[in-house]
Amino acid sequence: MRILILGGDGYLGWPTALRFSARGHEVSVVDNFARRRWHQEHGTDSLTPISTLDERIEAWREVAGRQIRRQVGSVEDGDFLDSVIEETRPEAVVHYGEQPSAPFSMISRDHAVETQRTNVIGTLNLLWSIRDHVPDCHLVKLGTMGEYGTPNIDIEEGFIEIQHKGRSDTLPFPKQPGSLYHASKVHDSTNIHFACRIWGLRATDLNQGVVYGIETEETAQDERLITRFDYDEVFGTVLNRFCVQTVIGHPLTVYGKGGQTRGFLNIRDTLQCVALAVENPAEQGEYRVFNQFTEQFSVEQLAALVRQSGEHLGYEVVVRTYENPRVEAEEHYYNATHTKLLDLGLEPTYLGEELVESMIHAIERHKGRVIEDAIDPRTRWRPGGSAGRGLIGAVSSGISRLANR
Amino acid sequence: MRILILGGDGYLGWPTALRFSARGHEVSVVDNFARRRWHQEHGTDSLTPISTLDERIEAWREVAGRQIRRQVGSVEDGDFLDSVIEETRPEAVVHYGEQPSAPFSMISRDHAVETQRTNVIGTLNLLWSIRDHVPDCHLVKLGTMGEYGTPNIDIEEGFIEIQHKGRSDTLPFPKQPGSLYHASKVHDSTNIHFACRIWGLRATDLNQGVVYGIETEETAQDERLITRFDYDEVFGTVLNRFCVQTVIGHPLTVYGKGGQTRGFLNIRDTLQCVALAVENPAEQGEYRVFNQFTEQFSVEQLAALVRQSGEHLGYEVVVRTYENPRVEAEEHYYNATHTKLLDLGLEPTYLGEELVESMIHAIERHKGRVIEDAIDPRTRWRPGGSAGRGLIGAVSSGISRLANR
Repeated sequence: MRILILGGDGYLGWPTALRFSARGHEVSVVDNFARRRWHQEHGTDSLTPISTLDERIEAWREVAGRQIRRQVGSVEDGDFLDSVIEETRPEAVVHYGEQPSAPFSMISRDHAVETQRTNVIGTLNLLWSIRDHVPDCHLVKLGTMGEYGTPNIDIEEGFIEIQHKGRSDTLPFPKQPGSLYHASKVHDSTNIHFACRIWGLRATDLNQGVVYGIETEETAQDERLITRFDYDEVFGTVLNRFCVQTVIGHPLTVYGKGGQTRGFLNIRDTLQCVALAVENPAEQGEYRVFNQFTEQFSVEQLAALVRQSGEHLGYEVVVRTYENPRVEAEEHYYNATHTKLLDLGLEPTYLGEELVESMIHAIERHKGRVIEDAIDPRTRWRPGGSAGRGLIGAVSSGISRLANR
Repeated sequence: MRILILGGDGYLGWPTALRFSARGHEVSVVDNFARRRWHQEHGTDSLTPISTLDERIEAWREVAGRQIRRQVGSVEDGDFLDSVIEETRPEAVVHYGEQPSAPFSMISRDHAVETQRTNVIGTLNLLWSIRDHVPDCHLVKLGTMGEYGTPNIDIEEGFIEIQHKGRSDTLPFPKQPGSLYHASKVHDSTNIHFACRIWGLRATDLNQGVVYGIETEETAQDERLITRFDYDEVFGTVLNRFCVQTVIGHPLTVYGKGGQTRGFLNIRDTLQCVALAVENPAEQGEYRVFNQFTEQFSVEQLAALVRQSGEHLGYEVVVRTYENPRVEAEEHYYNATHTKLLDLGLEPTYLGEELVESMIHAIERHKGRVIEDAIDPRTRWRPGGSAGRGLIGAVSSGISRLANR
């Protein structure tokens, strides 16, 4: 199958490209290296020393004997995107080419605007390109579980049947995004749903949970194939952050009460899910939403798990409560349906101590690269007030590393 | 009260500015004249010969002895908007400064992108400016009833209580916008709701129905105060279009079966509603949604009413069925709640023959300015296929004007 991956230089985009290439598909990637640029601007970097896109592609050619094509440019540039679509004529587009961080979108007006412009206009351009050049192409779009917020009812997969005043209809599940990044994904969903309803395009919107993990089957085959791994307060996801914090002896940064519950999944399962979506495409005109996660955890559950795993490896791990820089419910109901990908054959990789320990080992190899200054929460959802850096919880005394393996 | 009106040169923005000024408020307007530019680009124009903004403001100073301040610039320019907010320090912002046409947003990718960029980024900039400079300011934002689409259940005002699997929550009413313009308003609503929830801003989202009418109390006081009146297929709303068509002897352009039902209101009621919202502001942190219309009609009901009124005035009126250039249900359930503005004191101006006849009379004064070429539907929601211009309905023969009053 001809598969185009937008954002193919990223944390998930690059491993996805390798996976489809390994499965014999004809893979093209597009990236504008915005993520690399944003890290430079913030004085942060991937924990893993990632190669350039061209070096990665060359390494994959050596390792697997397969060619991944690449084009450099921005999805916000409609003419560029049009030319890519015309040239590659994809049967599936996997769209990761967005600004992916909630804190980034809350730093300033400029960051919020960059996020919504990149994400909303990029996806809008893509919908028009598909409509005009490859209307049969299946769009597989990465959304987020964060679109739903934390309603007091069960979260369904994209749609909900509502009974109201003696009538009923199945309607888009109401959205209450928790950041302007999450809002941009809600906007995307609205636009994609429109394109399927009105233009008859076919799309799968993957409302993904929080991803953790550092390696996939393909990236593990050669040092040069490693994917990026972010641990800073802006781009790092919570479990990845906790594991890095454990290795460098930094307290685990729990925001607020830690009762925030979300859906999570392993990076290996992201690749499974995307492959399942691509290889079992939506019908023409169908807008499909999959809730893409395997397990629910609260932040404090994750902190406890990482602490336990770290301690088994000889680390002294302190869990510290920080004043929550975000505005979010810290104790709430949360139960999200996620059966559609299981029905397609997803075999979940469940989180446990062993998995956390293997992440910690992988992180240890690069711990000299950690920029400790980038770890404490700094980006606040609200202006003014006290800094997110402030500690509010009781904290143990000495934070030292016992083992250095 | 210090009131800032964004889009203050427009069909509704200008009469709104006059109304608040007449009521003794301190009014500033902002416009970038995008609507005038878009008309030039499309070879169309307002039916009414509108003055420049500066001429209008000067005329109002002469007529009413009141000063309206103005600044020229775009809401998409965050620094400009910031400077306006800092300078005017409004207690209320009435935001009309958006691309307001559904067909415009469907013409091409560039038109869709311009619509969503103007609307979404403009409103996002505004939310940040209010947050950073005047957090107590009340945002009154013009949305549209078209955000809801045509669900098979009653439409509530912004939120709906949902019972689901033994639990319940009051959540944003699900949205199914019918064009990329309508989608942009959904995006705005999501962002504004976010700003109220997270930043504690206060906002009223006016989900407005289709507006008709040509005159308000203030614009009628002097020729130079007249507001714009669009009748072309891109910017004209349906009843306004039908009245112009009647006067120039063009068949009434009913799209498809004409069973499309929507909420409607008179331009005079728009001013009432906006004044009620401004003068009864939302609480700090509150995101309020009012469904702003007074009556529901189907397109065929409106065509019948205009035909009847036109015939009373001596016009021969033909109702013609055009292949629907849009993609929309032509027969559907529609019942939208609209009590909140009535509760605040709205006194509706109901539509009837007398009102249509007075519109027709007002139009007759400018009928020499009609560009007939701009009337037939041309902008299609779907690519390819037959043109919207095509007729599908049975049509009477001679279309001539009997009277010319």
